[in-house]
Amino acid sequence: MSPDETLMEYHISKNRLEALVDAIFAFAMTILVLSIDQPSSIPQEQAAALIPQYVIHLFPQILLFVIAFFVLASFWLEHHRQFHFVRTVDPVILWLNIIILIFTVLLPFSTDFSGNFDHVQIAVVIFHLNLLVLGALFLLHWTYLGEHHHLSDPDLDIYLKKRRFFVLAAIPFCALIGIGVSFISPQDSFYSYLLIPCIVIIFLRKHHPK
Amino acid sequence: MSPDETLMEYHISKNRLEALVDAIFAFAMTILVLSIDQPSSIPQEQAAALIPQYVIHLFPQILLFVIAFFVLASFWLEHHRQFHFVRTVDPVILWLNIIILIFTVLLPFSTDFSGNFDHVQIAVVIFHLNLLVLGALFLLHWTYLGEHHHLSDPDLDIYLKKRRFFVLAAIPFCALIGIGVSFISPQDSFYSYLLIPCIVIIFLRKHHPK
Amino acid sequence: MSPDETLMEYHISKNRLEALVDAIFAFAMTILVLSIDQPSSIPQEQAAALIPQYVIHLFPQILLFVIAFFVLASFWLEHHRQFHFVRTVDPVILWLNIIILIFTVLLPFSTDFSGNFDHVQIAVVIFHLNLLVLGALFLLHWTYLGEHHHLSDPDLDIYLKKRRFFVLAAIPFCALIGIGVSFISPQDSFYSYLLIPCIVIIFLRKHHPK
Amino acid sequence: MSPDETLMEYHISKNRLEALVDAIFAFAMTILVLSIDQPSSIPQEQAAALIPQYVIHLFPQILLFVIAFFVLASFWLEHHRQFHFVRTVDPVILWLNIIILIFTVLLPFSTDFSGNFDHVQIAVVIFHLNLLVLGALFLLHWTYLGEHHHLSDPDLDIYLKKRRFFVLAAIPFCALIGIGVSFISPQDSFYSYLLIPCIVIIFLRKHHPK
Repeated sequence: MSPDETLMEYHISKNRLEALVDAIFAFAMTILVLSIDQPSSIPQEQAAALIPQYVIHLFPQILLFVIAFFVLASFWLEHHRQFHFVRTVDPVILWLNIIILIFTVLLPFSTDFSGNFDHVQIAVVIFHLNLLVLGALFLLHWTYLGEHHHLSDPDLDIYLKKRRFFVLAAIPFCALIGIGVSFISPQDSFYSYLLIPCIVIIFLRKHHPK
Repeated sequence: MSPDETLMEYHISKNRLEALVDAIFAFAMTILVLSIDQPSSIPQEQAAALIPQYVIHLFPQILLFVIAFFVLASFWLEHHRQFHFVRTVDPVILWLNIIILIFTVLLPFSTDFSGNFDHVQIAVVIFHLNLLVLGALFLLHWTYLGEHHHLSDPDLDIYLKKRRFFVLAAIPFCALIGIGVSFISPQDSFYSYLLIPCIVIIFLRKHHPK
Repeated sequence: MSPDETLMEYHISKNRLEALVDAIFAFAMTILVLSIDQPSSIPQEQAAALIPQYVIHLFPQILLFVIAFFVLASFWLEHHRQFHFVRTVDPVILWLNIIILIFTVLLPFSTDFSGNFDHVQIAVVIFHLNLLVLGALFLLHWTYLGEHHHLSDPDLDIYLKKRRFFVLAAIPFCALIGIGVSFISPQDSFYSYLLIPCIVIIFLRKHHPK
Repeated sequence: MSPDETLMEYHISKNRLEALVDAIFAFAMTILVLSIDQPSSIPQEQAAALIPQYVIHLFPQILLFVIAFFVLASFWLEHHRQFHFVRTVDPVILWLNIIILIFTVLLPFSTDFSGNFDHVQIAVVIFHLNLLVLGALFLLHWTYLGEHHHLSDPDLDIYLKKRRFFVLAAIPFCALIGIGVSFISPQDSFYSYLLIPCIVIIFLRKHHPK
């Protein structure tokens, strides 16, 4: 082994990188809750009168929190499915994962921002862009694994690779629809993500003729 | 193995799901502390005079923090007891766990909210509802495990299954009492959770005649 | 095995409890940083003039953060040393650990509070009390382990048990001195914790005549 | 084994210290996102007009977040590469790691602070100093490992040790340049970190004549 290979050898183990990804996803999913605003400006004496109104106003924020939580949980699942096929972590996989983590960590910010200003197109588009980039990075990760013979697992044939690709494309596709809808109605653009379970079910049924 | 079974096979391992649940519970238990307000609006020169009052005003918030912490710790324990019997994670268990995590992550919000407005019924009811749903989801989880032969562990007979069911029902039961009491006095409704240790002790004694 | 023993058997594993304790200590140590105030009220145009003053004003908060971080790190080390001797987690150890975690999670709050009002005795005493209770709980944990034959490890004789007891008592001892000093000067009472390394070194030297 | 060796023996295991370091790095990388400000003071009715301006104003903060995230990720990688060679954790390594963690946890604060006041030299210098100290501590850690025969791994010769030293010195070197540039233009001083990938690539090429 040459000294340079030695240096690369100690790059990072698959288990440690998985542990970092798991921890950051868990934290990001938890601090999403901070995007739901506490009514700090309501004076105590008027609280009984103003709180019911406030709770109604809270629903879009809670809906957005739930969407962001489910999307992060889906990406976390996706990461594990993809990493199942990884045998060694090369520098490309390593830095691709770190870039994925940056956009994961940004999601609590963009969720909070677009939840506070859900009638402003630019705020809403930032949320959709965040998910679009995150979804594109996962597609890139999957493609890279496929092209570099990390996916040579005998269980996994080309049929499966393509199929997973289409299922995986559902989130960026919905993000694009969301950006489109935001030109008409920013507030309604979040509903585009309700298409994700529909796409997955239709796709699974089509290929499950049984 | 068919390609579809292959896809399902790689769903998620029990260990990874447990690790995500553990991390999110630990994190949610820690950020509960943010529900105790810092007195940001007290000017430094008046602090010596106003802080004692403020500290007295802090007690209900600390009590609520302690209740929420103990309830989350109990749910964490419960999760481990139930997962002891899980052999493979099917999609139902997976998504049931993710829904459980959503309501776990919401608890720091609902604790903070009801602590800030503990005299407003609707704010207090949101806290009780959060625990009611969380308790109901754990009951559902236990029932699902029992019905799908995941609990066929020879050590565990029907007697035990039922018994755990009753112990487990204590938290949603107290949440319901809390909602009832909130119609009379929102601030006192939190004391309903002091019934939990009593219920558990009475129940254990009744079935421990020794 | 009787059904009741079965129920107890599945209580909780040592490894999982350790993992929860580790995660909560890591989080609590990290969110300590939120106790250092951002100067939110300084307008941008006056920033160049006001920031130097602000940075000087920041030093006591950073000192307090460093003290709290080191104390939490010491308790984390202490936990591992004690848990080295634990073979099975009984309900007393379990709930003692959960109570330890409550006071661990409270420390970022009490650090923030006493840092904001370091000239107000009651705010400062809350910090000292937090550490006093945490230290006392660790002493109780150690005593419980000693009395219930969990410490029968052949390497550990009575001499060692007592010695660890004295080293362990250093934190609550300094907290008591801090409470005493706070009657004279709240701001200077934090320096009492500088005694901890001195106590440990003197004690180790006395018993290390070599 | 003497009683004192026994006491030292139970100091801390390598795995546990790694787990604490991993958790705190993951958490610090996640709460970095809190350094990107939410526009709390924009009234809803003016939001559509003011948000675009606000988003432009956000770019330096996001750039700083990305720099801090990449630097923390690099330090995390560096920690794993160094710990690969550690066989037992002695008290020096233990406390050096705890001091490294203090400055890691401080980074979200200094990132937030210098992001809020990026035209004020003192605020910007605090960020550079934080990275300078963190880089210096990692150099110290590596030197200590080298001098105390923890690096006697047959794969690792003197050539490699020195080489890693130079690569590792890139971050403190850029922090020093950043401090220098801050005397001329605080806002531009953050670009000094763009030198890191250049330095690493040049260095690797020079020693990779192939």
